[in-house]
Amino acid sequence: MNSLLKKGLPAVLGLAIATVPALTGAAAPAKAPAPADGTVKNIIFLIGDGMGPSYTAAYRYMKDKASTPLMEKTAFDPYLVGMQTTYPEDEHQNITDSASAATAMSAAVKTYNAAIAVDNDKTEVKTVLEQAKENGMSTGLVATSEITHATPAAFGAHDISRKNMDAIADDYFDEMIGGKHKIDVMLGGGKSNFVRKDRDLTAEFKKAGFGYVTDRKSLLANKDGQLLGLFADGGLDKMIDRTSATPSLKEMTNAAIDRLSDNDKGFFLMVEGSQIDWAGHDNDIVGAMSEMADFESAFQAAIDFAKKDGHTLVVATADHSTGGLSLGANGEYNFDVAPIKAAVHTPDYMAAKIAAGESVDSVLKKNIKLKLTAEERTSVKTAAATKDVTAIDNAIENIFNVRSFTGWTTGGHTGEDVPVYAYGPSSSRFAGLIDNTDNAKIIFELLGGKPTR
Amino acid sequence: MNSLLKKGLPAVLGLAIATVPALTGAAAPAKAPAPADGTVKNIIFLIGDGMGPSYTAAYRYMKDKASTPLMEKTAFDPYLVGMQTTYPEDEHQNITDSASAATAMSAAVKTYNAAIAVDNDKTEVKTVLEQAKENGMSTGLVATSEITHATPAAFGAHDISRKNMDAIADDYFDEMIGGKHKIDVMLGGGKSNFVRKDRDLTAEFKKAGFGYVTDRKSLLANKDGQLLGLFADGGLDKMIDRTSATPSLKEMTNAAIDRLSDNDKGFFLMVEGSQIDWAGHDNDIVGAMSEMADFESAFQAAIDFAKKDGHTLVVATADHSTGGLSLGANGEYNFDVAPIKAAVHTPDYMAAKIAAGESVDSVLKKNIKLKLTAEERTSVKTAAATKDVTAIDNAIENIFNVRSFTGWTTGGHTGEDVPVYAYGPSSSRFAGLIDNTDNAKIIFELLGGKPTR
Repeated sequence: MNSLLKKGLPAVLGLAIATVPALTGAAAPAKAPAPADGTVKNIIFLIGDGMGPSYTAAYRYMKDKASTPLMEKTAFDPYLVGMQTTYPEDEHQNITDSASAATAMSAAVKTYNAAIAVDNDKTEVKTVLEQAKENGMSTGLVATSEITHATPAAFGAHDISRKNMDAIADDYFDEMIGGKHKIDVMLGGGKSNFVRKDRDLTAEFKKAGFGYVTDRKSLLANKDGQLLGLFADGGLDKMIDRTSATPSLKEMTNAAIDRLSDNDKGFFLMVEGSQIDWAGHDNDIVGAMSEMADFESAFQAAIDFAKKDGHTLVVATADHSTGGLSLGANGEYNFDVAPIKAAVHTPDYMAAKIAAGESVDSVLKKNIKLKLTAEERTSVKTAAATKDVTAIDNAIENIFNVRSFTGWTTGGHTGEDVPVYAYGPSSSRFAGLIDNTDNAKIIFELLGGKPTR
Repeated sequence: MNSLLKKGLPAVLGLAIATVPALTGAAAPAKAPAPADGTVKNIIFLIGDGMGPSYTAAYRYMKDKASTPLMEKTAFDPYLVGMQTTYPEDEHQNITDSASAATAMSAAVKTYNAAIAVDNDKTEVKTVLEQAKENGMSTGLVATSEITHATPAAFGAHDISRKNMDAIADDYFDEMIGGKHKIDVMLGGGKSNFVRKDRDLTAEFKKAGFGYVTDRKSLLANKDGQLLGLFADGGLDKMIDRTSATPSLKEMTNAAIDRLSDNDKGFFLMVEGSQIDWAGHDNDIVGAMSEMADFESAFQAAIDFAKKDGHTLVVATADHSTGGLSLGANGEYNFDVAPIKAAVHTPDYMAAKIAAGESVDSVLKKNIKLKLTAEERTSVKTAAATKDVTAIDNAIENIFNVRSFTGWTTGGHTGEDVPVYAYGPSSSRFAGLIDNTDNAKIIFELLGGKPTR
């Protein structure tokens, strides 16, 4: 939908964006980090979907070296500045979904669960990505879910429901700001929402001058300034399940930064570690830790760029927590990461192999580098006999949860505050306890604009 | 045990503390708050035992006014400065207990679970309370548990095990610094650890010039400068179960501050909301929220004093989280506080009444202000038939957990980071992600001393 942009923005705001020349590939020159009160030219906003405080701590336990008495810090840890509240403004629910939370962070508006940058009156609300594009900045969205999934969608589209992913893909192409497509770089999954019976948006983007890639090698070789990259029909495989055909979140992030940073007016980039949440919904600690690693590498890439650039604000946070994850369960004062590290692939991956006919013993032996008990193998075989891939998945997840003392309370979201990490000029603005809407309020202010309300 | 103090401290450090005159009861004169880099004269260190990030968020949901679209903030919220890591250095467990965490916060030493201000070699380590007393400052411990329980003990005593609460009480009297008893004010529970067959420490304290009180009225009327207050044989009743004979944590905190602040050299006071954790172990959301309210009021009292005083640093944090508490459970995107607010007493209180012979229907009707279903009443009656008070308690807790969509994963502790709140001069020192040992490191530095190692 593009009614907001048609009706809401006077033409004068549609500043022409700077031409994005072909990518040179040269690294940004090294500079001293800007002081915290320096000028913000670029903003990289990273969202670990579902990455509540238990996830960041669990991941630190994962990275701990047993040889040292103290626990090593993660890439996030040095940049913690506070936490944020995440609750929605929803008639029926007081724990947020990803759409409502992303709308709060993109548009400074509390809204109902499922809303994509629309408020409780279903009125479209301006996002910080749109403000950036109005300013002539370059813009990008990167995710490991469909790039039209709730979180990126709430930065780059408007819809009454997150379910309308085809319409969201249409928005990405159809909604123009100052005569330009509003998102310069889109990298993630969701090919099926772009290549449809009724419309092939990939062809339309190509005709408009965008590059289009569908695998890692082409992404890394591509030199186009504007780029659409769709690496799966739906979501990408989780990091530990990927083949070399699928880029990492870090590679997508760097590809986006390379392109977007070639604009004197700066850029706004949203990067989502989408499937931390999906693993949480599945109560899959292996998948959750895989996606935390993928997200951490992307965060580190953003920090590395920001340190060199000196005028880049990096903010990383979560939209909510998922699953009621706990380190320690059933009375145990331990979170044992060894079994989690023993996984070669996710339980989902293993369950799919078993459901496809491979033997349980063979799949478990190849994919879990520890000696399972007869009871554990039997539990998976019993599930396999049902031919129900979910039952098989659950049985395998249970092995990891029990052995690692991982607790879960729900297949949905939970309402605790989530950590906020920030680096670069104006990073102190995000310190303390903020609300999810404060992210957008601060960013709008930094961009010299203001939210719809 | 007092070997540390006998062997470790040269006599020259045993500065005479300023005489503590009889309490005037006059409020401190109002002053403008000190700048964040001002001088620290007094330190109030508050520990919400078990108060992980789910507890602080759950409590915010409890305090939300349904009439306003935004969620009201708690007394803690404006002072969030970051989080802390809590892991112990224990051969067998990587999730901390309260003793190890308190030792980290009091003495800057990671140690084994159960250690009371001793390190992994069982060597006694100096605490910030002891440093304060060396400096001639006044010192206090306030808790709703036994005042000899793990958390206060690790500030005021030394023992190889938290279980030795009699020996810990002995330490409070026997360990002298500069010829003075090292703790000027002790308020909490645990009378049975002081009045014993082998020794009556209350008599010894009285003989040494301390006041001694055992109920709220006497506490509020008391004018002694040094004071022992023991308001229960074990832990105090939870806030919503208390009679007028038992003081609140706020009243105990104010009583401590009134006395301690009458020293030109300043004071160190540790205040513990002890039973947030106990409710968490019990998976009792009613009790947890009761104790959060009690702790919040004590925190507010500390802040109020600090704002008037201008030279008081207030730090509030937790030692760990407990129970794997989640807001939302079993797929529900809601944390419904109405059933929790409908409780007049804790499930423990109700279960005790039922176990003592009162009818289930009568107890439930008097103590839960909502219409229970036949199934809910039957579940408690079935438990009551067993005469097992724990089973009755669990059945009542289950009503609240199910109705409020509260999740739990364990009867033990969990490993996520916990929030850190700080106000006053040097409060910024606690910002970002710190380790539990950093609390003691910073406080030692502010006191001009240093940890044992």
